[in-house]
Amino acid sequence: MPNSSHSRAEFTARYLVESSVPIAKAAEVIAGEQSSGTFLALPGETDALKERARARVIKVESLPPALDASLHSAFVERKEPAEIFYRGEIEIAFPVDNVGANLQQLLATVAGNLFELGEITGLRLLDIQLLEHHAKRFAGPRFGIEGTRHAAGVYGRPLIGTIIKPSIGLLPDQTAQIVDDLCAANIDFIKDDELLADPAYASFDARLAAVMPVLHRHADRMGRMPMYAINISGTIDEMLRRHDQVLEAGGNCVMVNVNWVGFSGVEHLRRHTQLPIHGHRNGWGALTRCPQLGFSFDAYQKLWRLAGIDHLHVNGIRSKFWEPDASVLDSARACLTPFAGVQPLMPVFSSGQWASQAPDMFAALQTVDLMHLAGGGIIGHPQGIAAGVSSMREAWEAAVEGIDLDTYARTRPALRAALSHFNAI
Amino acid sequence: MPNSSHSRAEFTARYLVESSVPIAKAAEVIAGEQSSGTFLALPGETDALKERARARVIKVESLPPALDASLHSAFVERKEPAEIFYRGEIEIAFPVDNVGANLQQLLATVAGNLFELGEITGLRLLDIQLLEHHAKRFAGPRFGIEGTRHAAGVYGRPLIGTIIKPSIGLLPDQTAQIVDDLCAANIDFIKDDELLADPAYASFDARLAAVMPVLHRHADRMGRMPMYAINISGTIDEMLRRHDQVLEAGGNCVMVNVNWVGFSGVEHLRRHTQLPIHGHRNGWGALTRCPQLGFSFDAYQKLWRLAGIDHLHVNGIRSKFWEPDASVLDSARACLTPFAGVQPLMPVFSSGQWASQAPDMFAALQTVDLMHLAGGGIIGHPQGIAAGVSSMREAWEAAVEGIDLDTYARTRPALRAALSHFNAI
Repeated sequence: MPNSSHSRAEFTARYLVESSVPIAKAAEVIAGEQSSGTFLALPGETDALKERARARVIKVESLPPALDASLHSAFVERKEPAEIFYRGEIEIAFPVDNVGANLQQLLATVAGNLFELGEITGLRLLDIQLLEHHAKRFAGPRFGIEGTRHAAGVYGRPLIGTIIKPSIGLLPDQTAQIVDDLCAANIDFIKDDELLADPAYASFDARLAAVMPVLHRHADRMGRMPMYAINISGTIDEMLRRHDQVLEAGGNCVMVNVNWVGFSGVEHLRRHTQLPIHGHRNGWGALTRCPQLGFSFDAYQKLWRLAGIDHLHVNGIRSKFWEPDASVLDSARACLTPFAGVQPLMPVFSSGQWASQAPDMFAALQTVDLMHLAGGGIIGHPQGIAAGVSSMREAWEAAVEGIDLDTYARTRPALRAALSHFNAI
Repeated sequence: MPNSSHSRAEFTARYLVESSVPIAKAAEVIAGEQSSGTFLALPGETDALKERARARVIKVESLPPALDASLHSAFVERKEPAEIFYRGEIEIAFPVDNVGANLQQLLATVAGNLFELGEITGLRLLDIQLLEHHAKRFAGPRFGIEGTRHAAGVYGRPLIGTIIKPSIGLLPDQTAQIVDDLCAANIDFIKDDELLADPAYASFDARLAAVMPVLHRHADRMGRMPMYAINISGTIDEMLRRHDQVLEAGGNCVMVNVNWVGFSGVEHLRRHTQLPIHGHRNGWGALTRCPQLGFSFDAYQKLWRLAGIDHLHVNGIRSKFWEPDASVLDSARACLTPFAGVQPLMPVFSSGQWASQAPDMFAALQTVDLMHLAGGGIIGHPQGIAAGVSSMREAWEAAVEGIDLDTYARTRPALRAALSHFNAI
C-alpha cells in the first residue's frame, strides 16, 4: 500500500514477475531501473538522491518456478543461462514527487522499460495504488455514474442500449433511420461502433446533423434525451470541435477510442468536456491476453479513471470474445470499486448480449449501475426492436426482484419471446 | 499491397493469426468484424454498403497448426472446442474512405477488437501498407534525419550521445553540471531519461533554466548546439508550453514518451512543433514480447511515423534488454526504409552500448544515419568523458573505413583504452 507516514509520499505498483534471477533480486533490478538506479553502480546516486527518488521494494512473494521461460530473452541466453525461471508477485513503492500529477510519467514509471529488461521473462502490472491526496491531483471522471444517469434521465435500473450496425458503411440518413427505430422503442442508450467516426461517405458533421433532430423529437415525447455516444475520436482539434458541436446540438455523450487517442488526448478532452465520456477500449486485447505480460484490467481501469473517462467497456458474459465470464465480472467490479477517492466508472457490457445475462450479472454484482448493450438481442427480437428493449428491461426487473426469468416471462410476452427465440439459437 | 486501381482506394494490414477455425475463415471473421460485418448476417449490409465499407481478405497463407492454443479463449472452450489451432498469415484490405486521415480510426481498424475475438488464439499485426496519397494526409516527421542533422550541426557520422544518469533524482544544478561535463567532451546529443519530466524537486522550468546557459556556452565554443532532448511528456497544454519554452530558450529537440502521450497528443505536438521530436517507446515491451500477440515493430514504427515523430528508440545490440540483436537491427532498418513517401525516422540505439558495437551496426545497416547512445561507455571510460566520446567516434570511423577496431585503436588512445577496459568487464 502507498506510504504517507514515511517522510515521503509514495504510490505503488504490484506485478507478476518471472525472471532468470531470484524474485527478490528481480524486484530490486526493477525498482532500480524504474527510479534512480541502473545496472551499474552510479557515482551520482547519493543517499540524498536515493531518499528523494529511489523506489523501494515493499513486497516479494515467491511462486513456484517454471522450467521454461514464458517470454524469450536473448539476454538470458547470452548472459545468464538459466535452468529455472523464478516467479513471484512483487510490489514497489515510488516517490510521488518523481511524477506528481503527470499521468504520462506515472505510466513511464510503472509500465515503461521494465517490460523489456533482459532478466525478465514475464511481467504483468497487476494493480496500482495511489494516496487520495495524490489521486486528487488528476482530473478523474467529471460525470461518473450519477452524472451519466442525470444526462440520460434513467434511474434505478441499467441503461439498456445498443450499437448501430452495420458498424461502418451506413449513410447519414440510414443511420438516422435506425436511430429513429431505436428511439421509438424507448431505448436508453445508443452508440456508434468504434470503427465509425468520420468516414468520407458519412462525415461526423453529416451524421450529427441527421441524428440530432431524431433524438430531439423522441426526447420531447419520452421526457428524456436518449443518450447517444457519438464517436469523436481523432486529433485534439477535431475532438474538441466535435464535442462542442455535440453539446451545441443538445447531445449528451461523446465516445473515444481511449487506447488510440491516448492519455494526453483523453486528459485534454476531460478538461474541456461538458458531456460524459464513453471510453471504448478496443485494442485492449493486445495489452492483456498474454497472462505473463502487459496489464491487468484492475490497473488499466484505474489509469483511465485518473485520466477522466466516465464509462468503460468490459465485454459481456457469454460473449463472442475470448474472455472468461469471471474476468468480465471482475472488470465490472473493478470499475465500481472505490479507488483513492476517484469516482467509479460505469461499466459497459456488450457482445452477444440479450435478456438472459441479466440475472447472472445482478447476482454477481448486486448493482444496476451499468450499461447493458445488446445488438441482435434487441434488433433481432422476433417481435421487433421495442420488444427487444422491453425484454432486456423485464429481465433486469426479474433479476433485481430475484424471480427466475421463465416465471417472470409468463405474463410478459416480450421476455417470453426472447427466451424462446434466443435460447433456440 | 494496397489497391489503387480498384474502384476504391485501400490500405492493408498483414497479420499472424492462430485460430480455432481454419485460417481462411478466421480471416473472413476478422475482415467482417473490422468493417461492416458481424457474427450475424445483417439486413442493413447491402451490396452498396459492402462496396463502400467492407474489408477484403487479399491473402491467406497457412502455416503448420498447433496442438495447443497460444492464448486462452473461454469462447473456444464454450462454443467450439478445437483439437488443433490453425495458424497462418493473412492480409486484409480496408477502404481508405472508412478512416481517411484519422490515425485513431486507422488504429481502431487494424488493431482494435480483433485481438479479443473468441475464435482467435493468437493475433499479431505484422505490417501495414498505405498508398502514398493516403499517407500524405498524415503529418509525418517534420524534421526527420536531415532536419535533425541540421538542428544538431552533425553531418556524415552518427550522433554520439548519452542519457543523463541517475535517471531521476538529480537537482537542476546537478543536471547542469553533468551537461557541462558532457558538452566539454564535445558530445553530439544528450537526453533526459524517460522517467524524468517534471519532478517536484527538479521541475521542468528549473531544469531548463539551469541547462540552457550551459548548452549555449558550449555551442559558442563548438560552433554547433549540442542537441538536448528534454522530456516534455505531459498534458497537451504542458507539452505545448514546454515546447515553446525550449524553442525560446534556443533548445533544439523535445522528447516524448509516445505510448503514454498517445497518438492524438503526439499528432497535436507535431502540428505545433518547430523542433525535432525524440520518440521514446517505453512500454513497447508490453505490446511486442509475446510473439503471438500485439504488434511487430514494422507496423509500430509506421504508425508513429505517420503521427510525426522524428527519432525512435530501437534498443541496442548486445544490450541489457531482452531483444535479439537481429531484431534490433531489423527495427533500425524499418525506421530507415521508405514507406509510402513518409520521411524515415532516425533510429536511436541505446542500452549497454560502447565503442564495440559500431562495426557490427555499420556492417548490418551500411549507414551512419542513426543515434548511438552510451551511458557507461562514455561516462565510465577510464580516461574520462571526452575520451568516451572520442572512442565512440573513432569506432565509427573504423567501421565506415572497414578497419578492425584493434588495428584502428593502435594510434588512438581513447579507443584503445575503451577496448581494453570494457572488453574486460
